[in-house]
Amino acid sequence: MEEVKLAIIYYSSTGTNYQLAKWAEEAGKNSEAAEVRFLRIRETAPEEAIQQNENWAKHVEATKDIPTVSLEDLEWADAFIFSAPTRYGNLPSQLTSFFDTTGGLWLKGKLVNKVVSGMTSSANTHGGQESTLLSLYKSMYHWGAIIVTPAYTSEVQFEAGGNPYGVSVSEGKDNLNDNIKEAVFHQAKRTLTLARWVKAGFSGG
Amino acid sequence: MEEVKLAIIYYSSTGTNYQLAKWAEEAGKNSEAAEVRFLRIRETAPEEAIQQNENWAKHVEATKDIPTVSLEDLEWADAFIFSAPTRYGNLPSQLTSFFDTTGGLWLKGKLVNKVVSGMTSSANTHGGQESTLLSLYKSMYHWGAIIVTPAYTSEVQFEAGGNPYGVSVSEGKDNLNDNIKEAVFHQAKRTLTLARWVKAGFSGG
Amino acid sequence: MEEVKLAIIYYSSTGTNYQLAKWAEEAGKNSEAAEVRFLRIRETAPEEAIQQNENWAKHVEATKDIPTVSLEDLEWADAFIFSAPTRYGNLPSQLTSFFDTTGGLWLKGKLVNKVVSGMTSSANTHGGQESTLLSLYKSMYHWGAIIVTPAYTSEVQFEAGGNPYGVSVSEGKDNLNDNIKEAVFHQAKRTLTLARWVKAGFSGG
Amino acid sequence: MEEVKLAIIYYSSTGTNYQLAKWAEEAGKNSEAAEVRFLRIRETAPEEAIQQNENWAKHVEATKDIPTVSLEDLEWADAFIFSAPTRYGNLPSQLTSFFDTTGGLWLKGKLVNKVVSGMTSSANTHGGQESTLLSLYKSMYHWGAIIVTPAYTSEVQFEAGGNPYGVSVSEGKDNLNDNIKEAVFHQAKRTLTLARWVKAGFSGG
Repeated sequence: MEEVKLAIIYYSSTGTNYQLAKWAEEAGKNSEAAEVRFLRIRETAPEEAIQQNENWAKHVEATKDIPTVSLEDLEWADAFIFSAPTRYGNLPSQLTSFFDTTGGLWLKGKLVNKVVSGMTSSANTHGGQESTLLSLYKSMYHWGAIIVTPAYTSEVQFEAGGNPYGVSVSEGKDNLNDNIKEAVFHQAKRTLTLARWVKAGFSGG
Repeated sequence: MEEVKLAIIYYSSTGTNYQLAKWAEEAGKNSEAAEVRFLRIRETAPEEAIQQNENWAKHVEATKDIPTVSLEDLEWADAFIFSAPTRYGNLPSQLTSFFDTTGGLWLKGKLVNKVVSGMTSSANTHGGQESTLLSLYKSMYHWGAIIVTPAYTSEVQFEAGGNPYGVSVSEGKDNLNDNIKEAVFHQAKRTLTLARWVKAGFSGG
Repeated sequence: MEEVKLAIIYYSSTGTNYQLAKWAEEAGKNSEAAEVRFLRIRETAPEEAIQQNENWAKHVEATKDIPTVSLEDLEWADAFIFSAPTRYGNLPSQLTSFFDTTGGLWLKGKLVNKVVSGMTSSANTHGGQESTLLSLYKSMYHWGAIIVTPAYTSEVQFEAGGNPYGVSVSEGKDNLNDNIKEAVFHQAKRTLTLARWVKAGFSGG
Repeated sequence: MEEVKLAIIYYSSTGTNYQLAKWAEEAGKNSEAAEVRFLRIRETAPEEAIQQNENWAKHVEATKDIPTVSLEDLEWADAFIFSAPTRYGNLPSQLTSFFDTTGGLWLKGKLVNKVVSGMTSSANTHGGQESTLLSLYKSMYHWGAIIVTPAYTSEVQFEAGGNPYGVSVSEGKDNLNDNIKEAVFHQAKRTLTLARWVKAGFSGG
């Protein structure tokens, strides 16, 4: 069986989505048939904004060696798992700044049939955890991606907040609990499974 | 000061949105300058579906004397507060069945400049509480309504789940707590305040 | 190669979405490896509303022998292509009334991994043709469906209005032109292709 | 009558949204009781990307003296009219990069009760003209803004594409016709009218 290429692409300012992404990476690496890249969205906020928030500055420093995602990564991957916090119900501008550089790939059809799933966080329980994922998937429809959500395909979803669009979490370390971890594993595996089917179809069909 | 006419329009199968709507009614009645109608969306589910769910059957029986909303109510009101549970992230068909009868009013411009706010519920924490309100407001844009959300305009919002689009609650009696009640009061008052401004503008301007 | 089971499920009041659905059916029947059911959403509007609109009444009469979709059809199919007009940016209540009866299937996981794509129409060019499909897919995420859109995967999309979420058309007979027909064929084939891959994965994996 | 302060805030790469915004400015300046600021969203794309597109480079050069929007402008204004093109169905990152700097204002409640309306464009007819405005309004709900859309409040809307969420246009100079201009005027006036009512309410109430 050919390996599925999975790109985990995250943006995190203070670590929540970094953790969600790490769990997705772990799930991917546990899988026999996945090659995984763990990729950071480049920070575009001004240095002074970052320095005003101690946790943000620390996280930027701690993760500076993680490779930032490139257009080549998008072309390489069979599947993307995105993780990014809400910004007023939409995606953070760091992530959309990257999306806005993909016009060339899009034009050549290089983003078609990528299998996509997303995760998110917000400060408040209902402060954008559904809305942000819906924004992500809207853009993915323009790419020609194939969207797969966790829905209620595992019991753990009900324990993890029951967000059918993707795992989501309220910010705050205690919320990153075992149920969330297990739900991330489930979502990552489900994404990989679909990616395998799509890849086999591409090759065989 | 002329009274603002407020229509509280709810659909509820087992009582959660009925309770949210009752609190909104109480807030409206406490206001000196509001005339309030408490209006039920007509049940359209088949009798056999209702009878299979004891709580649903009980609630239907208990609320059968509450007047159902009519087109005349829509024309009469200056402001609408809607409350309805999610159905797969969208509005329940009972509510949209009613919306689908408003074409005549819409064509005559009778739905323009109504001040609108919404509340909702879902079984799971993230099972549609944002998404459903976004669907409601989409339709309201077509009517020419003016949308007002609670956002974070009161501290109580942060205690009540922080849904910027409207008060929302996970189903289950214990979730209908004092924070939610207070948040409903806040949202209802905010809606009435805006409705007063709009009405004064209409008359005076 | 095992046949893919495709359910084309449409709601139409005056014929536009019926025509879109018929083209999808034709595309499915042209495919060697698809078994197709052409299924009507049951009309729930009151008879008097229908009779006030001559075209609506005629269409109801003309299509009365087309089988209405059942829960069994949902369970049977590997893929769904939905076609329905907008109602204020959301799905028509006829369609959501049907969705609201699927709770039992949903609970048993019988709606998981269905491959889904949608088409729509509105009276005005920008009167809901994007918005309605976004509402459809929101609900599908709750089912655990796999969403596939046409995006810009064929040149014909650019000739047919370029709706990445699905083929859409402004109502009026002249708008149902060859570009739209070709775009429907493309979307139907794309949906079938993905459904085949998913089905092969299910069986083989 | 006190003047309403209107900020017209646009992002444009090759001029379409600049033109829409200019028309909104003209409408505002024609109004007796509006003070208008015409404000550009700062370009954040890399210089090399801009230089690869002749029209983009020209437009950047031609508009370099237009003041860029600041946080102070947001605080100053009673109403915002936004105009920005779609990027895969969402807002351009230039605009959301600016939104992402507003956390301080948001925290102090300085974005509450701003009256907001939006306009947009896309390359394809159905390539995001509805979807992008829905994304804008989602963020505005988080701010506590009051959303007013043109809906079908003027006959010109039907001539201008009938986008109930805001004026939108397919890119290409010929599409910027008199119907679109008139529709922008209508939307701007409607926004100003509501802003006047809200401001009078604030002051008087």
